[in-house]
Amino acid sequence: MNALTKTDTNEDFIPDDHPRSESLRIRHKLVEGFENGLVAKAGLIAHGRGEAFDYLLGEKTIESAKKAMEASIAQILLCKHPVISVNGNVAALVPEEIVELSEAISAPLEVNLFYRSREREIAIEKALLGAGAKQVLGVDLSHRTSLSGISHQRRYVDDRGIARADIVLVMLEDGDRTIALRASNKFVVSIDLNPLSRTALAGSFTIVDNLIRSIPLMTKIAEKFIEKDTSELRQIVATYSHQQILEDALRVMGNSYQQVAPMLETVIQAIEAKRQD
Amino acid sequence: MNALTKTDTNEDFIPDDHPRSESLRIRHKLVEGFENGLVAKAGLIAHGRGEAFDYLLGEKTIESAKKAMEASIAQILLCKHPVISVNGNVAALVPEEIVELSEAISAPLEVNLFYRSREREIAIEKALLGAGAKQVLGVDLSHRTSLSGISHQRRYVDDRGIARADIVLVMLEDGDRTIALRASNKFVVSIDLNPLSRTALAGSFTIVDNLIRSIPLMTKIAEKFIEKDTSELRQIVATYSHQQILEDALRVMGNSYQQVAPMLETVIQAIEAKRQD
Repeated sequence: MNALTKTDTNEDFIPDDHPRSESLRIRHKLVEGFENGLVAKAGLIAHGRGEAFDYLLGEKTIESAKKAMEASIAQILLCKHPVISVNGNVAALVPEEIVELSEAISAPLEVNLFYRSREREIAIEKALLGAGAKQVLGVDLSHRTSLSGISHQRRYVDDRGIARADIVLVMLEDGDRTIALRASNKFVVSIDLNPLSRTALAGSFTIVDNLIRSIPLMTKIAEKFIEKDTSELRQIVATYSHQQILEDALRVMGNSYQQVAPMLETVIQAIEAKRQD
Repeated sequence: MNALTKTDTNEDFIPDDHPRSESLRIRHKLVEGFENGLVAKAGLIAHGRGEAFDYLLGEKTIESAKKAMEASIAQILLCKHPVISVNGNVAALVPEEIVELSEAISAPLEVNLFYRSREREIAIEKALLGAGAKQVLGVDLSHRTSLSGISHQRRYVDDRGIARADIVLVMLEDGDRTIALRASNKFVVSIDLNPLSRTALAGSFTIVDNLIRSIPLMTKIAEKFIEKDTSELRQIVATYSHQQILEDALRVMGNSYQQVAPMLETVIQAIEAKRQD
């Protein structure tokens, strides 16, 4: 029995021998975040979407995603005011890791919610401060201003953060807001497992990968790239092709049809083994 | 403003002009089911997974899924004791439609939960009775028995239902339980949008399609097939190739890379339009 194994009558139960236990453990962190008021119901559904695309990627960082991370970090280091936009899922899944990336690229963290509520903003701020963040933007109402070209609650940004940023890193972001950021002449780096989401399409750079894997990898890349000069960074940015990156991720997902035959074999053996029990 | 448009500060808000409004409306039904105690947190996440695979399918019923429905209905009509297994997501999304299918194929409905709780069983029973079901199995404890080859709460079945069934229709089912059903020599028809899930693999027949579309379509097929004689039904079953059906769905998903270029064009136009506002 490990720490996560509580009782089999509630949803916290993860059988140790379950073939999907790693994915279930990540999911458990998210459900904890939901119970602590960090994650919205829509955030649970969004996580499920991510699980599906990640499944088709083979739950690993593909080569083209690494290239996209390098181009993104190079562009961030060339910019003056990078900002990292944080929502409930990010705070629940990678709180320490996002603080480390924030330090590595000298970009403040800004709480930025699709479904805003005062309670959730404050819960996320608290989680980030608890994970070592020195400052969290997006919560102090005296610094609240509006992004143009977008309606409703989701237009709010911090005048010290996204409002003046020249590049914004977003994760699981709403398509309308990504489009509004781009329309106000900011670069957008998007981390999104759905290569066809409007945010993945609208980003200046898109990383098709799981947050859990990509955020620590981006910190490592930043620590290495910080030594490079401007012309080197520009060269790395120039290698990025947005359309190719998105198409490549979908091609990798499509190739998973080759897994059907071996996986069928495994499942048929499992059925036979149970029959003989 | 339509009935679903309440306020933009909470999660019930769906902007009428949102490009994903149809998918958001289905999601809204599921969130309502969550609030009414039908759907588990894991059910919200599972729904998100379904959304992702459906996105890649183009949110339409593919030709090979229709073939799988025909083979499944033919096999169900050849069997003596078909049973439909119902969980919270099914009861939230297609309550009336599942009752209609149940009548068309003369198969009782049985509540069958991965995360069992008495409250949720009863809420689901109530929803199905409210949708017109005459009887709901799986809730009366005096008829509770166990499926062999499976541990924990998820082994329970009804002695009038799944325990004696020769074919079970499952949706969003757990892999372990599907394997246990197959090991006890039952046919399993699975509806699952993930062609690589253990349930999709372990099913005797798998329909890679959204419940919302497939359940009403299966009812129509059943109403037509009920006239056919045994040899005709056997011929239809014989055309089914499990491996091909799963591979075909993944191939369709993989072909979605061709959508990147036109979708990018649309999003770039949206950014430009906002810039000129």
